[in-house]
Amino acid sequence: MKRFMNEPQDVVRDYLNGLVAAHPDVLRLDTDHRVLRRANAAARPKVALIAGGGSGCEPLHTGFVGPGMLDAACPGAIFTSPVPAQIIAATRAVDTGAGLIHIVKNFTGEVMNFGMAQEIMAFDGISVETVLINDDVAIKDDDDSAGRRGLGATVLVEKIAGAAAERGDDLAAVAAIARKVAARARTFSVGLTSCTPPERGRPVYVMAEDEMDLGIGISGSPGRDRVKLAPAHEIAAMLLTEVLADLRPAPGSRLLVMLSGLGGTPDAELYLLYGEVAAGLRAAGLRPERVLVGNLVTSLEQQGAALTLLELDDAMLALWDAPVRTAALRWGM
Amino acid sequence: MKRFMNEPQDVVRDYLNGLVAAHPDVLRLDTDHRVLRRANAAARPKVALIAGGGSGCEPLHTGFVGPGMLDAACPGAIFTSPVPAQIIAATRAVDTGAGLIHIVKNFTGEVMNFGMAQEIMAFDGISVETVLINDDVAIKDDDDSAGRRGLGATVLVEKIAGAAAERGDDLAAVAAIARKVAARARTFSVGLTSCTPPERGRPVYVMAEDEMDLGIGISGSPGRDRVKLAPAHEIAAMLLTEVLADLRPAPGSRLLVMLSGLGGTPDAELYLLYGEVAAGLRAAGLRPERVLVGNLVTSLEQQGAALTLLELDDAMLALWDAPVRTAALRWGM
Repeated sequence: MKRFMNEPQDVVRDYLNGLVAAHPDVLRLDTDHRVLRRANAAARPKVALIAGGGSGCEPLHTGFVGPGMLDAACPGAIFTSPVPAQIIAATRAVDTGAGLIHIVKNFTGEVMNFGMAQEIMAFDGISVETVLINDDVAIKDDDDSAGRRGLGATVLVEKIAGAAAERGDDLAAVAAIARKVAARARTFSVGLTSCTPPERGRPVYVMAEDEMDLGIGISGSPGRDRVKLAPAHEIAAMLLTEVLADLRPAPGSRLLVMLSGLGGTPDAELYLLYGEVAAGLRAAGLRPERVLVGNLVTSLEQQGAALTLLELDDAMLALWDAPVRTAALRWGM
Repeated sequence: MKRFMNEPQDVVRDYLNGLVAAHPDVLRLDTDHRVLRRANAAARPKVALIAGGGSGCEPLHTGFVGPGMLDAACPGAIFTSPVPAQIIAATRAVDTGAGLIHIVKNFTGEVMNFGMAQEIMAFDGISVETVLINDDVAIKDDDDSAGRRGLGATVLVEKIAGAAAERGDDLAAVAAIARKVAARARTFSVGLTSCTPPERGRPVYVMAEDEMDLGIGISGSPGRDRVKLAPAHEIAAMLLTEVLADLRPAPGSRLLVMLSGLGGTPDAELYLLYGEVAAGLRAAGLRPERVLVGNLVTSLEQQGAALTLLELDDAMLALWDAPVRTAALRWGM
């Protein structure tokens, strides 16, 4: 395992220090509680969006904190959900009284810990809405999640609901658009390699040089099917088939297409793969209205990609295009 | 070698098709000449910036074409300079009569081919300014470059000179600021792995699991010194020592710091490394005024990083902050 790190047990802390050092105008770090929040408090009360999850999936969620997107993120240890105390600290830090939303990916530990945090806060009269993300079409039910896992749709919910909160929408409206995005987005992933958690020091599993995994998640777990490595155009067809079969967009739909690398795949390969996805979408009579290609929801240095499709409406489109300024996503400001 | 591709000999073509498909509002591809240019012609005459180099270093230069940055890019084959006909086609495609600038990295083939293109265009009375990029402090003279190689400073020149051209500065002014940036920027790189050109199908060289290369370039060539893999804080100190010894910024200088991955290193590792760089800069009494972390000048899927420092003045800072909209760099629009 070769990577830039100091001590393996310090990678999350050291990453957060570097992230904040690089973006002092956008981010502040509460080291004691391991909470990352915006550098500038809201000028007026606004609905606050808080998310968190296991580290190792960067830029999710820490790279998406800032104006137009998340108010705070609470990163857990590598591939481990944040603890309730951390979630509570993040939520309290950005509470302006206008309402609170937890964006929770459908993994057992994450659902449980956010739930416990909410129960504790309820004693103090603090009420939090939950938006559950469950866009992974690979696995309907497994030990690690009751129902579909939460993957790339998280980024789209954070961006679109973040823009709604930023323009002053009330709690009900922000929660509603967040749930609508979550309901109309689907993801399917392919892994070309395993990944190596720093403290483990060796790959989570072994794959042959001519194999790939279909239907992987983001915790370094193997996929649903191990198959022969295929050319990019075949992989694109597999990803599209899986996502479209579940999403079933209306003919001629406008789509937001996100093609995320898993960490170790360079953007140039992702763009190459996107070219094949775009050709498949056109052949299916669908319109890629907005496209986001890059390493956005990752598993450390794993090679691979995840295709997320969102069936857009005008409201989502306007909110997607609204200005955003985070470490990983920035436009319009 | 595992990567997303169809046929190894088609990776550049397929990448360009995907890039343009993902950014139809920004990019157009002339497939015959393999020239990538802006989707929208300039509304009024402006100085045009053209760059090109071997493919495999994406997003350089193709990811930097768009408003506020390059007018056109001509990507060569993997690790191979573009040919004169391609350079001529790119230059002619964006010539508005207000002046032309070639941004040329100091590699023998690139310097030669841009020079030949200019000689041919001179027969038609077309004159082109050359801005030479030579920021790599690792090698003063070698077979592949007369003097320092051109690395990360290319991105800074393209952004800052691109903003000057966009606001309507004349040819002399744009060339002057481009040369000033090139003169005040320095880079030093470290590689943790080799990389695998698709048509070659095996790594360019072999490194042990506990080794790293100091002073590598971007063509997959080995570095100046092969040493033991070190913790991130030691690597940051090595990078800073090399760059600062050559740049010699004035005490208290404001710096633009770019920490680029080489393709296979996830952003989270780069941010971790940046945290150590930032600590070193503070200890040296220097001010990281602007920071850019990400995979910006790469060698396929190589793991590693390159530190570029630019000593800023007010003019550069304003142009750096000006709006830009390209596939790889975007803010303010």
